[in-house]
Amino acid sequence: MERDRVVRIALLGFGTIGSNVFRLIQKEHDQILEGTGMDLQVVKVLEIDKGKVPSDAAPGLFTADFAQIVDDPSVDIVVELIGGTGAAFTFVDEAMRKGKNVVTANKQLLASRGEALFTLARQERRHLRFEASVAGAIPIIKVMRESMIAAGLHTVYGIVNGTTNYILTRMYNEEGDYGEILARAQELGYAEADPTADVGGADAAAKMAILASIAFHSRVTLSDVAFNGIENVTLGDVRYAKDLGFVVKLIGAARLIDGKVSVRVFPALLPVAHPLASISGSNNAVFLQGSAIGEIMLMGPGAGGVPTATAVVSDIVSIANTKDVGFLQSCSCYRSLGFYPAEEVESAFFIKMNVTDRAGVLAQIASIFGEHTVSIASMLQKGRGDEAELVIITHPTKEKDFFAAIDKAKGLSCCKSEPMTLRVL
Amino acid sequence: MERDRVVRIALLGFGTIGSNVFRLIQKEHDQILEGTGMDLQVVKVLEIDKGKVPSDAAPGLFTADFAQIVDDPSVDIVVELIGGTGAAFTFVDEAMRKGKNVVTANKQLLASRGEALFTLARQERRHLRFEASVAGAIPIIKVMRESMIAAGLHTVYGIVNGTTNYILTRMYNEEGDYGEILARAQELGYAEADPTADVGGADAAAKMAILASIAFHSRVTLSDVAFNGIENVTLGDVRYAKDLGFVVKLIGAARLIDGKVSVRVFPALLPVAHPLASISGSNNAVFLQGSAIGEIMLMGPGAGGVPTATAVVSDIVSIANTKDVGFLQSCSCYRSLGFYPAEEVESAFFIKMNVTDRAGVLAQIASIFGEHTVSIASMLQKGRGDEAELVIITHPTKEKDFFAAIDKAKGLSCCKSEPMTLRVL
Repeated sequence: MERDRVVRIALLGFGTIGSNVFRLIQKEHDQILEGTGMDLQVVKVLEIDKGKVPSDAAPGLFTADFAQIVDDPSVDIVVELIGGTGAAFTFVDEAMRKGKNVVTANKQLLASRGEALFTLARQERRHLRFEASVAGAIPIIKVMRESMIAAGLHTVYGIVNGTTNYILTRMYNEEGDYGEILARAQELGYAEADPTADVGGADAAAKMAILASIAFHSRVTLSDVAFNGIENVTLGDVRYAKDLGFVVKLIGAARLIDGKVSVRVFPALLPVAHPLASISGSNNAVFLQGSAIGEIMLMGPGAGGVPTATAVVSDIVSIANTKDVGFLQSCSCYRSLGFYPAEEVESAFFIKMNVTDRAGVLAQIASIFGEHTVSIASMLQKGRGDEAELVIITHPTKEKDFFAAIDKAKGLSCCKSEPMTLRVL
Repeated sequence: MERDRVVRIALLGFGTIGSNVFRLIQKEHDQILEGTGMDLQVVKVLEIDKGKVPSDAAPGLFTADFAQIVDDPSVDIVVELIGGTGAAFTFVDEAMRKGKNVVTANKQLLASRGEALFTLARQERRHLRFEASVAGAIPIIKVMRESMIAAGLHTVYGIVNGTTNYILTRMYNEEGDYGEILARAQELGYAEADPTADVGGADAAAKMAILASIAFHSRVTLSDVAFNGIENVTLGDVRYAKDLGFVVKLIGAARLIDGKVSVRVFPALLPVAHPLASISGSNNAVFLQGSAIGEIMLMGPGAGGVPTATAVVSDIVSIANTKDVGFLQSCSCYRSLGFYPAEEVESAFFIKMNVTDRAGVLAQIASIFGEHTVSIASMLQKGRGDEAELVIITHPTKEKDFFAAIDKAKGLSCCKSEPMTLRVL
């Protein structure tokens, strides 16, 4: 009987997440042993920055040499927490080749080089787990892969980037404009020194690529995701939306359409009553829709060293608990579905146009939309004279038709500036 | 290498859930095989009601004799879906003694006789899984037991009974009074012919007993849960609450207080902005709070044959994927924490009293509350003269102090009828 079985863990990287994983394993050690029969032991930590090595570290625990870890046959599980797609790839690759199971929190690595790693995992019959790579402490990967195995998932959407949600929440609360709030978020450590990946949507796109791969069992990489960020969302836009009863959120959406995969990230308007509208600050929330379940939602902290560390520890326990056959589920992209063209996807749109307020303008614009089979749900004119603004919300319509209509409308002499457009969820 | 491994399943009961599990296993068979290497096969179905046996059933698949199932060495997993605590107990007990792993959707069985079954599971080193017993398709058991293993859970609360939530949602929408809506729910099959267990809170209490046992690793049975139902909540109360910006919901709440367990079910007022206020119809939602995660919420359909069947299928796959050592997690009540006295729990309260509108009444009542150290958050008088109503909301206060104050206040000559009290979340 396998009881009090020692699980020997090596951590690669002792930054925020690594140090929290280390502490959490120590803190919860006895409870995990009682509850599962597993005796979790961190036996090696790779850290090249001597400044990060605690002065009271046990002798021999820390090393700057990966070979000492990967060539140690007693190490069962390697936990990659160094980030990036260079050394991290090499280490994960080599660890699996040398018989280790791997846990990683590295979304970039999986979204850009996941295929090679999952193929290797399958060949080597190794577990490659990555709960912490998406949505922090929210167990979205395990839920999709294990609990939703018979759910017939066809749609996954939600808020998967905490930095942009923090910024948009504060813009909604009128605490400043985009630049001010971003600067404050950087000071507080909620945004990176280089925030491009977050605010530009690439971070959310990498996460959605991972979620879509799991949900639809078909590999999606970062380059398959169409994404826009929030850099061009102004305080004025957010206020305007608020006045109309909407909240602006950065939404990731993955869908199966006619048997093909569509994955996109975009800022969108949500009615204030939408459950995602109330997800504030750095929280994340993901809806799963499937033919057998209707809709399920998971919400929680999308980042933070301690919450993310709980996801890493749960992966470690899960590997130690799972039969070898279970490795298949790590890399279950057993089909290749192809992608649904982005321009064919149907979305509802919000449009704000500055127009000359003269007779016939509304009719002219409405007629252009009609020609392009864009159906208008509501149309509202604010102000008069030079200040007139036209606000239009469309019914869901093919994106190529919508953008063709917008292109034509902005050529009209009555259209005084570039129209602002946002999708509506 | 264990691939295309056949997993032989016997279903006990072919009612709503049983027949949906059967169909779902057939429908998702190929995808599960591709994704996990498991070839799920339903090899026997126990059903004593011949009217429920499909006319096109494979010969030999259905039986009315449990011995044919439990004595068949090729059966790996027995799925108990007959309900109740009599035959279901006997079957589950015997199945585990004869080497089968067990999946059940039977909350009554676990909440009332779980201790004996989990002890047996541990002795026999069998898996006993029960995801479908609480909150339908929401994977709350797996998330708590596996993903939250290092989360330091201290609080679990939410809406875990769909019938009462259906009734309260419709009362809030002013579609009728309690009796009318209950009758309609019974017609539509959303409420049982005998709705006592649902509306009286016992169903939610059984579920909260299960959730608390998992969260705190200490056995909680139905008899340990203090519960009230919604039978005495009137349309007038719901309207009154709505006017004040509150929604009435039946809340289950399990907490660790000073190292002791408190589990209760009660109707409560929630501010409309509370995330649980928007959980409507037969949906369920559960918040998990822990020292390492802050707060996570899961929401989804709490009942229904197909959603519940997805939970059963996920348990089957999970057992087939889990090492023998993993059985420990099924029955991980490895400590016995004792119970925190219900009267010592702190709650905020809403009180509505009909009072004579004469000088000094407010002062008199306020002074009684003060004597019992009940701190008043807000006090509001509506109407004048004989029709005067006093509405008070307290700060969180020990329940025994609150009820002592209410007992004293209702003895006052100015108090014209039994005060209505509800907890406030």
